[in-house]
Amino acid sequence: MLRSHTCGELTIANIGEKVTLCGWVQKSRDLGGLTFIDLRDRYGITQLAFNMDVHSTLCLEARKIGREFVIKAIGSVKERESKNLKMATGEIEIVVDHLEVLNAAITPPFTIEEQTDGGDDLRMKYRYLDLRRANVRANLELRHRIAIESRNYLDKLKFLEVETPVLIKSTPEGARDFVVPSRMNQGQFYALPQSPQTFKQLLMVAGFDRYYQIVKCFRDEDLRADRQPEFTQIDCEMSFIEREDILNTFEGLVRHLFESVKGIKIDSLPRMSYADAMKYYGCDKPDTRFDMQFVELNERVKNKGFKVFDDAELVIGINAKGCSEYTRKQLDELTNFVKRPQIGATGLVYARVNSDGTVKSSVDKFYDAEQLNAWAEKMNAQPGDLILILAGGINKTRKAMSELRLEMGTRLGLRDKNTFSCLWVIDFPLLEYSEEVNRYFAMHHPFTSPLPEDLTLIKENPGAVRANAYDMVINGVEVGGGSIRIHDRNLQSQMFSLLGFTTEEAQDQFGFLMNAFEFGAPPHGGIAFGFDRLCSLFGGSESIRDFIAFPKNNSGRDVMIDAPSVIHNDQLKELGIDVKE
Amino acid sequence: MLRSHTCGELTIANIGEKVTLCGWVQKSRDLGGLTFIDLRDRYGITQLAFNMDVHSTLCLEARKIGREFVIKAIGSVKERESKNLKMATGEIEIVVDHLEVLNAAITPPFTIEEQTDGGDDLRMKYRYLDLRRANVRANLELRHRIAIESRNYLDKLKFLEVETPVLIKSTPEGARDFVVPSRMNQGQFYALPQSPQTFKQLLMVAGFDRYYQIVKCFRDEDLRADRQPEFTQIDCEMSFIEREDILNTFEGLVRHLFESVKGIKIDSLPRMSYADAMKYYGCDKPDTRFDMQFVELNERVKNKGFKVFDDAELVIGINAKGCSEYTRKQLDELTNFVKRPQIGATGLVYARVNSDGTVKSSVDKFYDAEQLNAWAEKMNAQPGDLILILAGGINKTRKAMSELRLEMGTRLGLRDKNTFSCLWVIDFPLLEYSEEVNRYFAMHHPFTSPLPEDLTLIKENPGAVRANAYDMVINGVEVGGGSIRIHDRNLQSQMFSLLGFTTEEAQDQFGFLMNAFEFGAPPHGGIAFGFDRLCSLFGGSESIRDFIAFPKNNSGRDVMIDAPSVIHNDQLKELGIDVKE
Repeated sequence: MLRSHTCGELTIANIGEKVTLCGWVQKSRDLGGLTFIDLRDRYGITQLAFNMDVHSTLCLEARKIGREFVIKAIGSVKERESKNLKMATGEIEIVVDHLEVLNAAITPPFTIEEQTDGGDDLRMKYRYLDLRRANVRANLELRHRIAIESRNYLDKLKFLEVETPVLIKSTPEGARDFVVPSRMNQGQFYALPQSPQTFKQLLMVAGFDRYYQIVKCFRDEDLRADRQPEFTQIDCEMSFIEREDILNTFEGLVRHLFESVKGIKIDSLPRMSYADAMKYYGCDKPDTRFDMQFVELNERVKNKGFKVFDDAELVIGINAKGCSEYTRKQLDELTNFVKRPQIGATGLVYARVNSDGTVKSSVDKFYDAEQLNAWAEKMNAQPGDLILILAGGINKTRKAMSELRLEMGTRLGLRDKNTFSCLWVIDFPLLEYSEEVNRYFAMHHPFTSPLPEDLTLIKENPGAVRANAYDMVINGVEVGGGSIRIHDRNLQSQMFSLLGFTTEEAQDQFGFLMNAFEFGAPPHGGIAFGFDRLCSLFGGSESIRDFIAFPKNNSGRDVMIDAPSVIHNDQLKELGIDVKE
Repeated sequence: MLRSHTCGELTIANIGEKVTLCGWVQKSRDLGGLTFIDLRDRYGITQLAFNMDVHSTLCLEARKIGREFVIKAIGSVKERESKNLKMATGEIEIVVDHLEVLNAAITPPFTIEEQTDGGDDLRMKYRYLDLRRANVRANLELRHRIAIESRNYLDKLKFLEVETPVLIKSTPEGARDFVVPSRMNQGQFYALPQSPQTFKQLLMVAGFDRYYQIVKCFRDEDLRADRQPEFTQIDCEMSFIEREDILNTFEGLVRHLFESVKGIKIDSLPRMSYADAMKYYGCDKPDTRFDMQFVELNERVKNKGFKVFDDAELVIGINAKGCSEYTRKQLDELTNFVKRPQIGATGLVYARVNSDGTVKSSVDKFYDAEQLNAWAEKMNAQPGDLILILAGGINKTRKAMSELRLEMGTRLGLRDKNTFSCLWVIDFPLLEYSEEVNRYFAMHHPFTSPLPEDLTLIKENPGAVRANAYDMVINGVEVGGGSIRIHDRNLQSQMFSLLGFTTEEAQDQFGFLMNAFEFGAPPHGGIAFGFDRLCSLFGGSESIRDFIAFPKNNSGRDVMIDAPSVIHNDQLKELGIDVKE
């Protein structure tokens, strides 16, 4: 080793020792008689001291060394005169007697500090410098720790990590595949997996009983802020289980991660039906760090001459506790918020519950005091509270109210990133109907089993069938989802047929799986966690990009290495493909 | 859970317990009054017993159940009358009182036994059935165990697992890339990584200090028996180290794996120079389970009138201990072996050392007894030994003798797959000259550092420069290789120039790395292990395919899912590519 210690480990216990450190120059201070260098590595920062009186040549050398130079310093550990107790090494410094520049550095394009002056583009282009920042490195250390602890937990439960292939077969169902032209089989393509779904099911057919993998998956989608073309899943599957077993096993995983990685104890996770999630939170991934559930007001508001409510399919209110004193400006902000095109409400009705118990609403001319008091009662609103009401079509109103609820949660400071509220959302619809293409789509995927008690509905009313599926939601983020799978060939065929596959198409694309079901497939089910998102949640960040070593930008580009890029014509020729002009 | 226990855990300690087991029917035996079913799962086999006298309906049901049916059985644990002490559960059986068929099975296309009647093609097509065989499953369990223990070892040494991207940039140097057309950047392509080489070096520049990853890599090569288009590496890199540190750290890994996974203690690994490996074993990955080193005989055989030897650049012998009694037929076999086109020797000379100490050779007319005795002395051959001699050009003769040595090792039973002999081969040449394209190629890759003491040679005699590179060889298999990397921009530029890159090409393809070197790159180096091969070696098999859950065949096809395959024209259109007719 070029060093005897790292920059994070020397303390007063080492005083008097001769040590060799290597690292990067975080900063240097020239105080005339004394020069100090803060030497940084992954493990910490240690102060190097050079004394002009004692060793002038060396001190002069040290003064010439710039930020981010890589150096090796040999010296003795000495107790500091002015200690910095915030740092692990803050009680000591190294009195250097030998110094070597291992590599020089030109000036970085942004400062290597937790708060940097580098913008996103610059940071991504020089990602290797961005990764030197302690907070970015800490994100990836956290990721490593979560991976290790996930494996420990699953290994103890006898899950086997099995690698499934990356070069697989393209299937038109679901999101768009990335494809890979085959040189040895010209005109044919591999696809990169969107998930190892069929392979993990085949592992269950193979009797592997418990499988997991922390695995890269790929989706060629138009990217939004928090999407990456390649992403990582903790992918799991179990045999001979029922839904309850999966829920217990994997809430166990998440509770283990919270405890081992963050030292936080999490209670057992409540279960909420999809129907309730929609009714009370307007979305299937409710942020349950705060209450503010929807209250349906149809009964109390209709037929009083207010056309907006009279015409509405649904009128719902939320109770913003303690907000009755909101100003006109604040209420206008909220109205503008819900009227933004991406939310699309036509307006916002409010009612203040004053300190004297009277209720004052924006639609007073349609409702008398008694009626308004009835609203407040229904909303469980106390003096000082503010009732916010939206009305319209069911889905749209719920969606808009969900956004408003989150906005109010944020405004009221109810969404602390260091508080964690986890739950299971269960009993999703099996199918979604698309008016556009006039057929059903699988809400999760075509391998999801219906709830046993809904099986009889599948012929006459498929839209009403609930899936034996579940999502884990933490702080309003869907961190994982899965289902009990179909393991019966006939039911699987029926499912493909519901989804508009002809028998030939189903056989062509998924014949291997349906055939496998004929050779003794066990009841099985599983789950996949979005690993990037789980890490960002644990790290208290909304951006998954900060938890990926080398992420791509919103155009799917790696700006550091400049990929994708044009390839040689020879390569295209060998692959038997042409690029269209 | 659908079961209370697995099929591998019940013993006499459980006698009297009511249990529920699930699994596959391995076989059933109808003995008239009694019917037995062997129920199998991943954990073992448990015998189910049905008594015609006690429970006739159930017994009749049981008789109808075929092989590979998935069933659930409830019953009581009872001590067996005739115990099978070879099985963990061999002392008990389950007297069944409830039986449920969870899924039926049609007859599998081959027997689900360790020794199967299924050929390779059939096994691959129904890989999910092949994976039910205990030995195939054991291979993947071994793989899981090696992965876990590798991570444990590296985690303890503070290596961070960091995921590097799969969608990267194509570079013409090295093997052929798989490419992925970009829909969002039409006409441009990602490449799948042949290794995370540049990314792990950038992680060192980023100060990550110690990195590892168990990671899929890809090469679009024409496949040989033991090659897969996607394969897995244990990829590692360290900063502030010298070669000795890497060798110690990673022989530590392999010794830890041998001890923790196989219970075998391995001594510290000897180091052998590439030059010595070639001189004494004729190849850079010598099988050192047995000795039989090459002895150069030029001095003792030349200028005695035997033209073959006189004209030869090199004459080498090996001593096949105890083989002096080889028959004419055996010697002919060896001669034919070395004359096969893939070996290409023109003939084989032998000399027997008889029990009376006389030496009898196939070229007696050119050499007298004294001269032949001098051969035997040089070869350290004793009565009973057989000397085998090849002659010709240096490289060709060494290569042929290497094959002959391995063949003799096999014939003499010196290559036991349960004996492990590990070593490091070091000091490889940095460059190889290709007469074909009239330039140097990097023997490892363009990022390999020259040995410091050879740096001065790089201008006048690049072919003589040795690399600071190392391979780990176990039983004649290269299981890992790596090097100390270049961390200096100028040396890296010089290297690219030696390899025929123009400045523009180097900048275009590897500019990001060379730029990174300007911002303070630490001395660093690393290694990558072929994980599939390491697993097969631990499993005592020559085929890596048996250690991969879903391998591809020699045409790069997954015959189970039938990939690669033709994709929709819409997909091609979206990607902006055409398939040539």
